[in-house]
This record gives sequence, C-alpha cells and structure tokens, in this order.
Amino acid sequence: MNMLSETIKKIKDLDIDSKEKANERLNNLIMPKRALGKIMDLAEDIAGIYKTNHPKITNCSTVIFAADHGIAQEKISLYPQEVTTQLVKSYINELAGVNAMSMAVDAPVYVVDVGVNSNISHLSRSKIDTLIPKVFYDKKISMGTLSFIQGPAMSRKQAIKSIEIGIEMADLLTNKYDLIAAGEMGIGNTTSSAIIVSILGRVSPREATGRGTGLNDKDLERKILNIEKAIEVNQPDKDDAIDILAKVGGYEIGAMCGFYLGCAANNQPVVLDGFNSSAAALIACKLAPKVNEYMIASHLSKEKAHILALNILGKKPYFDYNLRLGEATGAVFMFPLLKAAANLLNKMATFEEAAVAVNQLDSYFINKD
Amino acid sequence: MNMLSETIKKIKDLDIDSKEKANERLNNLIMPKRALGKIMDLAEDIAGIYKTNHPKITNCSTVIFAADHGIAQEKISLYPQEVTTQLVKSYINELAGVNAMSMAVDAPVYVVDVGVNSNISHLSRSKIDTLIPKVFYDKKISMGTLSFIQGPAMSRKQAIKSIEIGIEMADLLTNKYDLIAAGEMGIGNTTSSAIIVSILGRVSPREATGRGTGLNDKDLERKILNIEKAIEVNQPDKDDAIDILAKVGGYEIGAMCGFYLGCAANNQPVVLDGFNSSAAALIACKLAPKVNEYMIASHLSKEKAHILALNILGKKPYFDYNLRLGEATGAVFMFPLLKAAANLLNKMATFEEAAVAVNQLDSYFINKD
Repeated sequence: MNMLSETIKKIKDLDIDSKEKANERLNNLIMPKRALGKIMDLAEDIAGIYKTNHPKITNCSTVIFAADHGIAQEKISLYPQEVTTQLVKSYINELAGVNAMSMAVDAPVYVVDVGVNSNISHLSRSKIDTLIPKVFYDKKISMGTLSFIQGPAMSRKQAIKSIEIGIEMADLLTNKYDLIAAGEMGIGNTTSSAIIVSILGRVSPREATGRGTGLNDKDLERKILNIEKAIEVNQPDKDDAIDILAKVGGYEIGAMCGFYLGCAANNQPVVLDGFNSSAAALIACKLAPKVNEYMIASHLSKEKAHILALNILGKKPYFDYNLRLGEATGAVFMFPLLKAAANLLNKMATFEEAAVAVNQLDSYFINKD
Repeated sequence: MNMLSETIKKIKDLDIDSKEKANERLNNLIMPKRALGKIMDLAEDIAGIYKTNHPKITNCSTVIFAADHGIAQEKISLYPQEVTTQLVKSYINELAGVNAMSMAVDAPVYVVDVGVNSNISHLSRSKIDTLIPKVFYDKKISMGTLSFIQGPAMSRKQAIKSIEIGIEMADLLTNKYDLIAAGEMGIGNTTSSAIIVSILGRVSPREATGRGTGLNDKDLERKILNIEKAIEVNQPDKDDAIDILAKVGGYEIGAMCGFYLGCAANNQPVVLDGFNSSAAALIACKLAPKVNEYMIASHLSKEKAHILALNILGKKPYFDYNLRLGEATGAVFMFPLLKAAANLLNKMATFEEAAVAVNQLDSYFINKD
C-alpha cells in the first residue's frame, strides 16, 4: 500500500496565495466587474490547484480505463460483455464516442486495459510500431471481476492494484499533459457504481440506481434486486473505501479513483465525468478528503443518481446535455472552459496594460507615416 | 436594398433529407441509443443547416462589430464612450476578453469598425503589413449614432448600410471558415437592444431592460426612463424592422443582423451570443423569418431580459455561466460542441463498421506474428 499512501501524502491544500493573486488580477481586467462570471471562478480555482496565478493549460488528453464485470452475466445491461472489448478496440481505431468528442477539443485518447475479459495484450505492441501510435496500455489485473452477488468482486490486493494503476497513469500523463480527463468502459459498471453511491452516500439502492445503457422498468427492478443482494452477501464496510471497492467495485472504478488521487498529487485538476466517475470520486474522497478540492464537475448525466452523487461531492455541473455514455465524453468539454480560464490570467490585459498597449499600437502607425 | 433582398432570397429551408440521413446514422453508432443526448440533436440540426449529412467543421473564427451610440451621453452605462475605441484596439492587440476566450477554441478574431466615434482608419493599413495580421476592417458609417432621445439614431439608409456591412463580412468569412461567431462592442448598446426587444417582443421597457455593464438601481431607473422617452419621441413602427433599427438601434446591431442573414444565406449556423445578439437576431427574423431555423443559442447571459428574448426566438441556451460581456465570449464555446456534433457524423463508427475495423486491427497484429 506504499504507492497509495505516498500519493495521498503528496496531496496538498490548494494554494490560497495564488488564488488571491488571481482574484486581484481578474478584478482589474478590461471588462465590467466579474463580467465573465463562472469562467472567472474557474480561473481562481485553477490558480489554487496548479499553485500559480499563471496556470498553463495548452495540451490536454483523455484516458479511458476499461474492465469487465462478473455481474454482467446477470443481464443488468442491454449489452453483452463482449462489447467492452469491441469498444476498447474502437478507441484504438479512433472510431468511438470518446474519439469523436476528444477530437473536437484536440485531445488524444489513451486506453488502459485494467481487466478486460479477453486477450488483447498484443495491442500494446503498437509501442514499437509506427503505424499505430502508442495509445494502449496493458495493465490487466485479471479477466474481469467476479460476480459480487456470490462474493467479493475482487481481492483487497487487486483493489489496491487497480488504484495503483490509476496513480501510475496519472504520474505518466500529468508529466506530458497540462490537463487530463479520465473516463471508463465496462459493461455492467453502473451496477457497481450504484452500490458504491448507495453505501458512501447513505441512500437506498433504489435511489442510487438508474437505467444505465437503457434498461426498461422490469430490468431496472432486477438490477435493484441484484444490488440489494450484493450488499447483503458482501456487507461492505462503509468506513473502509477499499473494502467497498473490493467487494462491489470494478477495476476501472478503482483505476479512476487512483487517477484522481494522482492528478491531485501532481497539482492538476480532477475533471469529473458521469455517474461511474462520481462513484470513483466518492471512493477517492473517502481515502483522501483533500482530493475533493481538486475536483471540478463537468456535465450532469442522464443517469438518475448522478445529481445525487454530485451533491454529496459538493460539486455543481457546468452543463447538462443528456449524456449517458461515460468514456469521458462529458468531461472533455471542460477543456475549452479551463483553457479559457487560464487565458484570462495569462492573455487578457488590465485596463492599465491595455492603455499602454493601445499607445504602442497607435505610435507604431504614427511612426510609419 | 438590393444586397439585402437578394440575401434574404438566398436563405433556403433546412435540408430535411440530410437531417433524416443524419438521424438514421446516429441511431446506429456504437453506443446506447441517443447516449450523446443534445450533441446528437445538434448533429441533426447542422446536417439540415449545412445541407449535408457530413458537415465539415474544422476552422472557426470570431468577428466583432463595434460602433458608438449617441445615447451614451445620457450616462446609461458605467463606462465613457472612449472605452469602445480602447476595446477595439485591444481586440487587435489580442488582449481582451474575446481574445482570451477565442484562443481557447483556436479561433482568430476579426474586428469591424461600423461606426466607432474616433479616427482609427489607420489600423486597417495592417493589410499590407506583416507585423500585425489583417484582422481589422474599416467600414465606418459615421462617428457613432445620434442620441435617440432627441430623434432617430440614424437614417434609414444608414440602417440598411449597417446590415449590408454584416452581409459583406458574412460572405467574406463563410468563404474562409466553416463556422463563425459574431459579437459586438459599443458602450450604451444594451439600451438600444432593450428597446428593440421591448418593441419586437411586445413587452414593457421595464421588462426588457437590465443592468448592462452593472448599473445600480438609480441608474437603471434612468435607463428605463430614457428608453420610454426614446419610444415616445421616435414611435418606431413595430412592423418595420428597419424603421426600428434606424430609430433606436445601433450600427453594430444592424451589422450583426446582416451577418446572421449572410450566414444563413451561405448555409452556415447562426450562433447567438448574449442580449445584444438576441436583439439583432429578432430584427433578422423580422426581415427573414427563415433565418430563425439557422439560429443556435449558446449561453444564457446574466442580462435580465436575455431569457425573454431567447424565448421569443424559441431557442434554448446550452450553458449558463453568468456571462455579461458580449464580444461573442459565450458564443465561441459552441465551437467545440458543434465540432463534436460534426465528428459524430464523420468520425464515429456504426456497430457494423466498428466490427469490420476491429477485425482489421486484430489481423494486422496476427499478420505480424
């Protein structure tokens, strides 16, 4: 548990001094007071997170953690487990939702296999290949989790391993990118997330459970029954986040949790995505309450309990587009907003500076006469 | 009125066939049904607007129309008229709000002087200069409008001229860019816009009037009194949009209106910005009702009557960040969303296509063994 505890120790408080300096500058920029509203609030937030009043956000990327779930055999999703593998390959082929969304904000997509139930390790050989860029990381823990209606989804050791994989990826990617959005893929994972939100949010399974990929009323009832059974069988310890993750979680949820801790430890924002992301965020906050200060909500998902999870996290979403795909497809739209927030601090002038620049512009032309 | 009437004639209905083809493809992409919510709705909308089920949105830009207002001498703004000129120069210097926001979405900013009350024509000489790129267009109609509490702000001929300048800029920019956001600058212009919204929206001046750059209660009352006086003195004809524009409008509002007509005539979306933009949009819709189908709202501004104007236009905003700056600072954040919508149609695979690509990916690696 060394890597995890060291990462948690590295998470500092936000830098109040940078935040105050940012606030002072923002109040003197060439516009009416606070006329750029929430983008100015974001500018102050990221000054505190990056610990500088001139945070640089130029290159962004997306990372998807994928894994399979034993619970998928209980038909709690409209799609068979094989779809996880097909989607992972589609990410690499740049043909999926996250690719279309990430291209729109100039972010390359990385894919991490934390426990997909198929043999796809050959895809990571693309490292030594120029035809396919190195975007796939083979970090498979096992061929998917076990079904948690019979017993724990994974061992405690595997749970910690999944978190460590997320930390590792955060260390790697924060070194190359100023801002990264994490997303997930795993048929069946909203069932895991509903249990996590139910336990950590102290709400009933029914309140925490939504339709996922699009269940009808009857299938939704079966999903809720499975969730109630999983809690009864496993009795997760609500004060022990790793126990919850091991008993009813998924590898990709653990990895996202670790990624969030790693981003905060590296002084970068944690951009939340949809419902599964909020479950990972709740585990991360349980392990290291300070990580909450680094979290920025992006969208409000159509998955029913997302708003509930965001409320527990104390975060307000910036937009609501009825998304329910996961894959970081909402989170990536925070990139332009956060870039804009950084630009406010780095590119925009105060009234005084603008006046100096205006004089220079005029004298440039006068001197040419 | 030749250019205006010809432009209006060029505005076609949206292409239902492209929209239907887009809908069909969207329903087969590798994700649960409609899982990308409003971005899918946007994809269908732009298929109809661009009149192709594969609309291309790669390069975007921003254009700011600037002009001064005689009414500014009545202290209906916190800022003196000189600020309009200072801001125009700051746009060219890339130091203002619109520059910071546009840089975040990779859009260059163009500036058009439609009637700023200062001599800045020398700035357009940058055309033959490599030091400063050609971003400024000198289209000055006069040194600002007259104060409309004494009589018409401009002549009918000047009103038409302002619209034609907008059309000209739309013809120029739609030829170079796939998508353009228009914004405005002009100290005093929310007073004009409030009158336009009041007349075309059939609401009282009080309902249509907000705090602009940040008026206190007392100044807000003076603004409303001025608006009531302007309507009484000028008696704008509510059925004649050009009469309204001439009597109580501003050159930049006319230019934005023309720009909107020009974008629609060139089969491109009309991305709305804040309150002044909605006043220009209402005039455009009065002149050519079909332009409404091309309009896409971006943000909900903090200016009180913006929601009212959007309701009249029948448009729902995509986000609400408490912006109240104008300058297209809200509109530009539609670029990533609209690019993403186009990517859904151009880059994302159907389940069938993804399966083929997956097989190719696998055999690529197998053949290397």
